[in-house]
Amino acid sequence: MSPSASPSPFLDACRRLPVEHVPVWFMRQAGRSLPEYRALREKHPRFSAVIEEPELAAEVTLQPVRRHGVDAAILFSDIMTPVQAIVPGVDIHPGKGPVVDEPFRTKADLDRLRPIEPEADLPYVLEAVRLVRAELPPEVALIGFAGAPFTVASYLVEGGKSNDYRHTKALMYGAPDVWAELAGRLADITLATLRAQVAAGAQAVQLFDSWAGNLSAADYARHVLPFSTRIFEGLADLDVPRIHFGVGTMHLVDQLSAAGADVIGIDWRTPMADARRIVGPDKAVQGNLDPTVLFAPVEVIEERTRAVLADAGPEPGHVFNLGWGVLPDTDADALTRVVDIVHGA
Amino acid sequence: MSPSASPSPFLDACRRLPVEHVPVWFMRQAGRSLPEYRALREKHPRFSAVIEEPELAAEVTLQPVRRHGVDAAILFSDIMTPVQAIVPGVDIHPGKGPVVDEPFRTKADLDRLRPIEPEADLPYVLEAVRLVRAELPPEVALIGFAGAPFTVASYLVEGGKSNDYRHTKALMYGAPDVWAELAGRLADITLATLRAQVAAGAQAVQLFDSWAGNLSAADYARHVLPFSTRIFEGLADLDVPRIHFGVGTMHLVDQLSAAGADVIGIDWRTPMADARRIVGPDKAVQGNLDPTVLFAPVEVIEERTRAVLADAGPEPGHVFNLGWGVLPDTDADALTRVVDIVHGA
Repeated sequence: MSPSASPSPFLDACRRLPVEHVPVWFMRQAGRSLPEYRALREKHPRFSAVIEEPELAAEVTLQPVRRHGVDAAILFSDIMTPVQAIVPGVDIHPGKGPVVDEPFRTKADLDRLRPIEPEADLPYVLEAVRLVRAELPPEVALIGFAGAPFTVASYLVEGGKSNDYRHTKALMYGAPDVWAELAGRLADITLATLRAQVAAGAQAVQLFDSWAGNLSAADYARHVLPFSTRIFEGLADLDVPRIHFGVGTMHLVDQLSAAGADVIGIDWRTPMADARRIVGPDKAVQGNLDPTVLFAPVEVIEERTRAVLADAGPEPGHVFNLGWGVLPDTDADALTRVVDIVHGA
Repeated sequence: MSPSASPSPFLDACRRLPVEHVPVWFMRQAGRSLPEYRALREKHPRFSAVIEEPELAAEVTLQPVRRHGVDAAILFSDIMTPVQAIVPGVDIHPGKGPVVDEPFRTKADLDRLRPIEPEADLPYVLEAVRLVRAELPPEVALIGFAGAPFTVASYLVEGGKSNDYRHTKALMYGAPDVWAELAGRLADITLATLRAQVAAGAQAVQLFDSWAGNLSAADYARHVLPFSTRIFEGLADLDVPRIHFGVGTMHLVDQLSAAGADVIGIDWRTPMADARRIVGPDKAVQGNLDPTVLFAPVEVIEERTRAVLADAGPEPGHVFNLGWGVLPDTDADALTRVVDIVHGA
C-alpha cells in the first residue's frame, strides 16, 4: 500500500492510488430497491420529509451500507433540495419527480432565485451529513452531491420532468443572456451547497448533470461547460475527490472530463476502456454496469460485472458503479451479489 | 442534372445524385403540429381509426405536403400497426403510446406472433399508400416505414412505453435464444410489410429503430444488428432507397450504417460532418436540426437551419430533416420557414 493511502478504498481509487479491491457503490443505492427503505417510506410517505428530518435521512443513507457492504454512502437527498429550500412551490412527488408550480421562463423569474446560505437554508442536510459520518466506519466514505446547473434548470424551466427539454433549450437558444444568468445563479447555489456538505463531513462530492446528455456537444460547450467548470474550480481547494456524471453522455465524456472533476462517471453505453482513453491517465473513472443487467439471471449478472472490471483494466483509478441509478424493483440481493463479485475479483 | 436524375430531389439525394436544392421532410410531419390534423382528430378521436381508414390516413399524410411544401410524404401509420393487426390486445392510446395488454416475456408468448400477410392483414395500409401516391405530384416522393425489431419488441415485452427497457434487455441477456426468435419473427414481419408498401407505391422506406440508442454498442452488435441487417438485405432487390434511424444513437452510427441502409438518419447530437465521415462516401445522410430549436425565435431557427446545411456540406447525399420527430405543440409556421430556408439555400 502506498504511504498516502487512506483507510477508504473508495477515496484511494478516486485518487488513482492502488487498492486491495476495487471499491463499489451504486447511484440511488439508498432507495426503492431496499425493503427497509420501503418500510420506512410507508411511515413517512412525503419524500421530502425524509430528506428534511436528519435522523431519517441518515438512516436511509446507511441502509445500503449495512445491507450490501458498499465502500461509500451517498447522502440521501435530492438534486432539487437546495432550490426547494429557497423557492416556494417546488416539491417532489412520488413517481412524478420534482414539480415546480411556476416554471422559470423569463428574466423576471430570476428574482425568485436568491443566493443560498446552506447553514440557514439547509440545516437538515448538513445535520444528516454529520450524523452519517459519525456512524460510518473509517473505511466507508461519505459522498455529498448536488445537481448541475443544466439539470436543475431543466426542472425549473419545464416545471417538472421532461422528455425533450424544449422550454429549457428554447430559453438557452433564444435568450442566452437569461440562460447564462440562471445557470450562473444555480452554479453558485450548487457550489455553496457542496462546500457546506464537505465542511460538515462529506469526503467526496458528485455533481449530477443527469440530463446534459440531451444536448449536442456544441450546445454543451457553449451553454453548460462554463458553469459546471466554475463549480469544480470552486471546490479545488477542498482536497476532496470531485465526481461528474450524466446519463446518455457518450458524446460528452471529453467535456465532462474537461470541466475539472477528478472522477468521471460513465454511462453504460460508453465502454470503460474508451472512457479511460478519453479522460486520460490523470483522472479516475466510475461505472458502468447496465442497471437492467440486474434483472437478468445471476450468471449473467456475474459475467457482466466481471466484464466491466476487465474493461476498466487493472490500472488504479476505477470505482465500480452502475452506468445509471438503481432502477425501482431491482432485487436487493442482486446488488449485494455485485458487491461480492467486485470485492472478490 | 445527371441523366439518371428522377423528378424527385428527395430520391436523387438519397442516391447521392446532384440536386437543385437540398430536399427536406420532417419525421412526424403528419401529426399534432398541424391545426388541420388536430381538427381531423377531433372528429376521429381513436388514433388507430385514422390509420385503418385509408381516406383519412391519406388525407393526414398529404396535409404537411400541402402546407409546408416538403419534398417527401411519409405514410401516416404507426410502427405498431403490423403487430396490432395480428396480435389481439395491442392498441395505441393518445398521450400514452402503444399498450400491449399481455406483454411478451416467455418462449410460449412467441406463439402469438404469426407471420404477417400484408394484403390480407394490412389492406388499409396498402390502400392508403395507393391513394397517397395517386395524389402526390411526381416531384414529391412517398416514404413507407416500419419499426425495427428492437423497438417493436420493446413495446411487446415491456407492455408499453419504457424509460429503461428493463424487461426487454433482461430477456435479451437472460434468454438470448428466445430474444433471437422474437427479433427474427419481427424482422420477417417488418420485411414483408415494407415490401408490400413498396409494391403499393412507396418509393423509399425508413426503418425506425427509435429506441436502439439505449443499448451499448456491444449489445447492439450481438442482439440487434443481425436482424436489422436481414431486413435491409431483404429489400435490396427493390431498388428503393432504404433509410435507417434511431434517436440517441451517437455511439451506433457506424452500426446503423453497417446494417445496410442507403441513407442514415442522424440524431441532433451527432454533428453531420462527423456522420458523413462515419458513414463514408457511399451512403447519404438525413438530418439533423434539434427539434427544440423550433421553439426558439425565428432568427435562431434560421441560423441553426443554415448551420445544419453547412455542417452537412455541399456534397450530394444530404436529406434535410430534424434530428428526431416534430414535437407536439411545435408551431407549424416554424416548420414551413425551415423548408423555405432549405429550399432557398
